[in-house]
Amino acid sequence: MRLSQFHLHTSKETPAEAELASHKLMLKAGMIRKLAAGLYTWSPLGLRVLRKVEQVVREEMDAAGAVELLMPAVQPRELWEETDRWEKFGGQLLKMQDRKDAWYCYGPTHEEVITDFARHELASYKQLPVTFYQIQTKFRDEIRPRFGVMRAREFLMKDAYSFHISDEDLGREYRNMYDTYCRIFSRLGLQYRAVYADTGSIGGSASHEFHVLADSGEDALAYSSDSDYAANVELAEALPTGERHAAEEDLREVETPTQKTCEAVAALLGLGLERTVKSIALMGADAGGAPLFVLALVRGDHVLNEIKLAKVPGLEAHRLASEAEIEAHLGSTPGFLGPVNPRAPIRVVADRSVAAMADFVVGANRPGYHLAGVNWGRDLPEPDAVADIRNVVEGDLSPDRHGTLALCRGIEVGHVFQLGRKYAEAMKCTVLDETGKASVPAMGCYGIGVSRIVAAAIEQNHDANGIRWPEAMAPWRAVVCMINPKKDPAVTEAAEALYRDLNAAGVETVLDDRGLRPGAMFADIELIGIPHRVVVSGRGLESGTYEYRARQAEDTENLDRDALFRRLSS
Amino acid sequence: MRLSQFHLHTSKETPAEAELASHKLMLKAGMIRKLAAGLYTWSPLGLRVLRKVEQVVREEMDAAGAVELLMPAVQPRELWEETDRWEKFGGQLLKMQDRKDAWYCYGPTHEEVITDFARHELASYKQLPVTFYQIQTKFRDEIRPRFGVMRAREFLMKDAYSFHISDEDLGREYRNMYDTYCRIFSRLGLQYRAVYADTGSIGGSASHEFHVLADSGEDALAYSSDSDYAANVELAEALPTGERHAAEEDLREVETPTQKTCEAVAALLGLGLERTVKSIALMGADAGGAPLFVLALVRGDHVLNEIKLAKVPGLEAHRLASEAEIEAHLGSTPGFLGPVNPRAPIRVVADRSVAAMADFVVGANRPGYHLAGVNWGRDLPEPDAVADIRNVVEGDLSPDRHGTLALCRGIEVGHVFQLGRKYAEAMKCTVLDETGKASVPAMGCYGIGVSRIVAAAIEQNHDANGIRWPEAMAPWRAVVCMINPKKDPAVTEAAEALYRDLNAAGVETVLDDRGLRPGAMFADIELIGIPHRVVVSGRGLESGTYEYRARQAEDTENLDRDALFRRLSS
Repeated sequence: MRLSQFHLHTSKETPAEAELASHKLMLKAGMIRKLAAGLYTWSPLGLRVLRKVEQVVREEMDAAGAVELLMPAVQPRELWEETDRWEKFGGQLLKMQDRKDAWYCYGPTHEEVITDFARHELASYKQLPVTFYQIQTKFRDEIRPRFGVMRAREFLMKDAYSFHISDEDLGREYRNMYDTYCRIFSRLGLQYRAVYADTGSIGGSASHEFHVLADSGEDALAYSSDSDYAANVELAEALPTGERHAAEEDLREVETPTQKTCEAVAALLGLGLERTVKSIALMGADAGGAPLFVLALVRGDHVLNEIKLAKVPGLEAHRLASEAEIEAHLGSTPGFLGPVNPRAPIRVVADRSVAAMADFVVGANRPGYHLAGVNWGRDLPEPDAVADIRNVVEGDLSPDRHGTLALCRGIEVGHVFQLGRKYAEAMKCTVLDETGKASVPAMGCYGIGVSRIVAAAIEQNHDANGIRWPEAMAPWRAVVCMINPKKDPAVTEAAEALYRDLNAAGVETVLDDRGLRPGAMFADIELIGIPHRVVVSGRGLESGTYEYRARQAEDTENLDRDALFRRLSS
Repeated sequence: MRLSQFHLHTSKETPAEAELASHKLMLKAGMIRKLAAGLYTWSPLGLRVLRKVEQVVREEMDAAGAVELLMPAVQPRELWEETDRWEKFGGQLLKMQDRKDAWYCYGPTHEEVITDFARHELASYKQLPVTFYQIQTKFRDEIRPRFGVMRAREFLMKDAYSFHISDEDLGREYRNMYDTYCRIFSRLGLQYRAVYADTGSIGGSASHEFHVLADSGEDALAYSSDSDYAANVELAEALPTGERHAAEEDLREVETPTQKTCEAVAALLGLGLERTVKSIALMGADAGGAPLFVLALVRGDHVLNEIKLAKVPGLEAHRLASEAEIEAHLGSTPGFLGPVNPRAPIRVVADRSVAAMADFVVGANRPGYHLAGVNWGRDLPEPDAVADIRNVVEGDLSPDRHGTLALCRGIEVGHVFQLGRKYAEAMKCTVLDETGKASVPAMGCYGIGVSRIVAAAIEQNHDANGIRWPEAMAPWRAVVCMINPKKDPAVTEAAEALYRDLNAAGVETVLDDRGLRPGAMFADIELIGIPHRVVVSGRGLESGTYEYRARQAEDTENLDRDALFRRLSS
């Protein structure tokens, strides 16, 4: 390919509407152009990268034994009513009526269509297991489409669906797909993590999200220093932090006239924040359904986790207590609350870390005062319940007890999921098992956001000058640039020959024959992120060398032809 | 690929809802499955063929210098209002509202989006010429979707759009695309013709349709025996058929009591049908707009062409005359009309063939009578107008005067079109020309119905047993079948080795390891149309041969390994 014939269209201006680096750089590099909110045209440059990702996904899915098909984008309402999702899916479902007033939607996902396909195509256990996949344009009518193709409404997705005669076989294919996804993201050259995911209302424990790591990621992740454990911060278990030591201090009331937060109290007393305890007053319900006043305790340096809290018996549907409820149970106002000497009976739920504390600080249930030197069993009863109700923090023991946790941020680009029999049951999809009995197959589904990967890769791989593509996603592996070709016909000739020879040697190379000045040419090449740049100049030709620079490198090197080919072929 | 892992799902039953052979065979072969009216899932087998077509199209478009991009399928109403097509496009446009009640359509074509892209991306003549293309799913809400993917609502299309500084350059690229289309259909192994097309209301004379030839085709085509001239029958010009010879017969009235058609009169008189003339009574308008009674004359063996008739001055907006109007002008009833001795002044428009006749037969304007031995100039005045107002017939001189015309039927699968400046002007797309002046670029558009090609190829290439794919479109080039592999492990071993070796030799081969009986296995293989079948059996192994059969051939041959590889590699 010659750049003069490729319609490369970069821009020097930084687009004002873009917040994320990937969005800015894709617009500057001319990879995408906005048509309307959440709708983008992929330019020739953008499409080249998108196709590279698509091809890696396709090759690995094929290698994993999945078979590709192509389902319609437009789906009839009737199917979505069978699974009760026509209304439930919500506003993201783009609905339309055809000329006969029949309702359809633009498919945001294809569980219904593939299950309909399966109930007609699959008759016997002999046809199982089977994993179908497609790579297709989908639509989700996002409330706030943003960040360019990171959260577009129309997007390219690989979605796969597997069918199994048993849960065990579903588990096997789930692992196969998990491994396949690891291979895909590794081949793409991305730093990623597979994290345990919240399976939400669908049930079943087996679900992993695949995240590309990037500081700008929307999701906070925790991962182990020593194992492949990783999870969303909100879902990672906080293990007990050690044994409670014996009481060393006496209980004492301290004056804290304006100190209403743990931070302020710790500062006043000259103590570490980890010596203080936050008391959060909640209203839950007892086993009989009667209102229950609960004081939830977490360490001053920890953050309460609502998802975990809702798993504690009695707190499934909790709310914050009102000031009147607090006054009635504790006889105090917020800012000075604590579990010691409540006015009325209360239930105390302590985080594991709090249950392991001694000589700690809590509110005194008296405005303007806190208690220090508090100890369980001596100054107040042992907690009614001890549970994991906080977010993990950097340095916590990894839940798999291998290493400690570190935190990072990620962009979700893939999801593997054991669906079980939810869709097959709803849509009456059965196959005959070995005994001739109709059996509902177990299903798995496996998605990859192909277009989002392009943006996520840029978030992870860029610098002040532009994109730094991983080799597998780069539009070309190498570029040949010419200095002053009009002045020096030998330069053109040598560049053309080098361009031809590199491609013949299997190095996907583009020729920059646009005739730009070197500065503008190099700026474009860095912006669009081609991994290897080779410059042909009159001076180089005299000395028999080419100027080579890797996109990642600070400096250029002068290489002779053999060294250059060795470098680019490795 | 092993068929056991491919989810091949053929059917023995002929689907009742399918009329066309391609629709029947695609359902029987399990290439497609209907989801709803005009919406089809492409199974793994169907998708393999679709991708083959797609890849040939892509390679030839790339080789022709076009650059691929990808535009959104969902398009905002505002763009379509700029070109005044939001309403005008009609019911085929599938419209929808997003969650903010903004209107969009599912793109049936992309002139608006590409012109919007161009007006932002193209600033200077230096960026021209450029041809963009995409291969994308489109939607047209057909009134009556039918014939499977031949006329589906959701379909795969290659659409291309070119931009030019001058009409001359548009003409050059038009020729380039025309040649590219010829290469595409030739590579696909299809019998096709490029035909001059009616440019309809858009204007401009340069437009060609590409038709795959098939007896079931919707369009009737005429083509030259000796040149590449081809046109829709309704558009092909009928040249004059020769000189009028001198009168030899006397005018005479003949009794034709019940003979109201040329066929009946010719039979009664023992004359050839080509000696008779049909008189069609029409009402047109004269230059001043006053009603004008016109008698249009075509030879008894010819068919009047409405499109051509409407080009005759006075007949731009004609209708059939009423019986009262006929009575008033000719004094007769239909079945016995003619141009001789009308009751009132009439205008006579003769087809070129009729103007060249002598001693012919017409109605006598007297119920129950015709006139024979009629001659222009002697029995009636020369016609008021002589024009081409009939359909061409087999054997007519080709309009380019090279050879004679033959007729066939075709399926339109491609269209190249010089759009001119219609869209660019409507959407205010300009570039700076060499003098620095804003100039509206000329545009061309070039479409190929990728999914329709699959069906059209089957219409052209099938027999009673199934599909006969051209090599370039076949799901695989060859299949290796095994006879009684369970009985004879040597068969499995030899088949596996052959399968591996053929693929290694570059022959795309599938292994039929499904364990079917030979009859069922061979029936499937013929149905899905694999061009080359190789059978590995115990008997063959003993004699050192494989049983080979081409899909086209009647008989099998026993070939040794070398001969087999030579045959399959050629």
